[in-house]
Amino acid sequence: MPRVIKHPELRREELLDHAQALFLTQGYDKASLNDVIASAGISKGAFYHYFPSKEALLEALADRFARQALAGVQDILHDPGLDPLGRLNGLLSQSRRAKIETAPEAWALFETMFRPENLVLFHRINLAASASFSPLLVKVIRQGIEDGTFRTFDPEGVADIVMQFGMATRDVVAKAIAGGSDADMEAAIEVLEKRVRLYEIALDRILGLPDGSIRIGEPGYVRTVMTARRRTSAGKAR
Amino acid sequence: MPRVIKHPELRREELLDHAQALFLTQGYDKASLNDVIASAGISKGAFYHYFPSKEALLEALADRFARQALAGVQDILHDPGLDPLGRLNGLLSQSRRAKIETAPEAWALFETMFRPENLVLFHRINLAASASFSPLLVKVIRQGIEDGTFRTFDPEGVADIVMQFGMATRDVVAKAIAGGSDADMEAAIEVLEKRVRLYEIALDRILGLPDGSIRIGEPGYVRTVMTARRRTSAGKAR
Repeated sequence: MPRVIKHPELRREELLDHAQALFLTQGYDKASLNDVIASAGISKGAFYHYFPSKEALLEALADRFARQALAGVQDILHDPGLDPLGRLNGLLSQSRRAKIETAPEAWALFETMFRPENLVLFHRINLAASASFSPLLVKVIRQGIEDGTFRTFDPEGVADIVMQFGMATRDVVAKAIAGGSDADMEAAIEVLEKRVRLYEIALDRILGLPDGSIRIGEPGYVRTVMTARRRTSAGKAR
Repeated sequence: MPRVIKHPELRREELLDHAQALFLTQGYDKASLNDVIASAGISKGAFYHYFPSKEALLEALADRFARQALAGVQDILHDPGLDPLGRLNGLLSQSRRAKIETAPEAWALFETMFRPENLVLFHRINLAASASFSPLLVKVIRQGIEDGTFRTFDPEGVADIVMQFGMATRDVVAKAIAGGSDADMEAAIEVLEKRVRLYEIALDRILGLPDGSIRIGEPGYVRTVMTARRRTSAGKAR
């Protein structure tokens, strides 16, 4: 019985593995849906049962990355050794660590999202990724409100603001990629480093915490993630 | 000499007037580019000299709305009777007043932007509108930093956060419109009212001000803007 129920989910995961491998070697834009289908050795009809389009594959890959990144995170939410601020910082640091670790693959797979014509795709993928992260944020913000650490009346609204901070940096990254030069990238890194500092203090204050409580990035974090692109996908994507 | 130079700008304004009138009576989606061209009594080639597409017309109309709304606003920035907080609240209240006054026309013209397939258009139009507003915000935030009223190191970043607050409410409005029922609209109004309160306090705190300093909306503001749609464009757009 379990085998019968689990099978479609396993098949779906296998299709994602094939797509990911193909996108990594050929690049998302160059690999066609037919390539993915051929590499998976599956009929077209069977494939469309799982994914309606190539974009849906990318969306599902982003969702899988997000879920893998947050796999160990339930522990943080219930760690009795951490107060709500420690838990919130634990969530943010886990998300940061996952971004650094997956940066080379993530750039190769998702750089296409930062093209101007792919704003809708970016938005959809971002929503998919934040669907995993946002409820965890809400949970820990609620814990902090209950024990008096955080001063806010709208945990869902604050979680949305945190997710918006991520969306808001898109234009900076997109511009740097479109520019293409090392100078464009350096300028973007500078803006983003400053923005991370601002978002940290903004979130401190929105939650009624002393400045310097929240850690969204550590020094060098932005550079590590952004330069992972230069080392891996930059050549391939052009 | 001035007549020769001014002529293209006047012609452009006239084309926008024709497009606005047509979009208001027929609805943006139903009116074709050919309708606009016919109503303006101009050749197709001449038209394309000014606007490459129907979307470009809508973008230009949004930009014109934004500039008209902010016409009197330079006075606020230099009003010696106002401190920086007074000037910032003056800017926000002017933008609010403009939204209330233009709400019926704005809904009729721009509701189409909230359709899921028009996210790119929304983003472009929002960027065009914020291109007028954002520099004013930066200016008044700088004034407040200089005289010690505001505590932040990144005026451009804070102005971006204010503009993001506007972008962030899009999904709530879009969902209410897609739902279409009075209950959907009521639910959206409730979320938005709460969100306005959160954004006010968030901005207070990001700027290092006491809670309750910033006024983004007044009680009933969201309802006034949102129900202007029900009274005007709702029937037409369907």
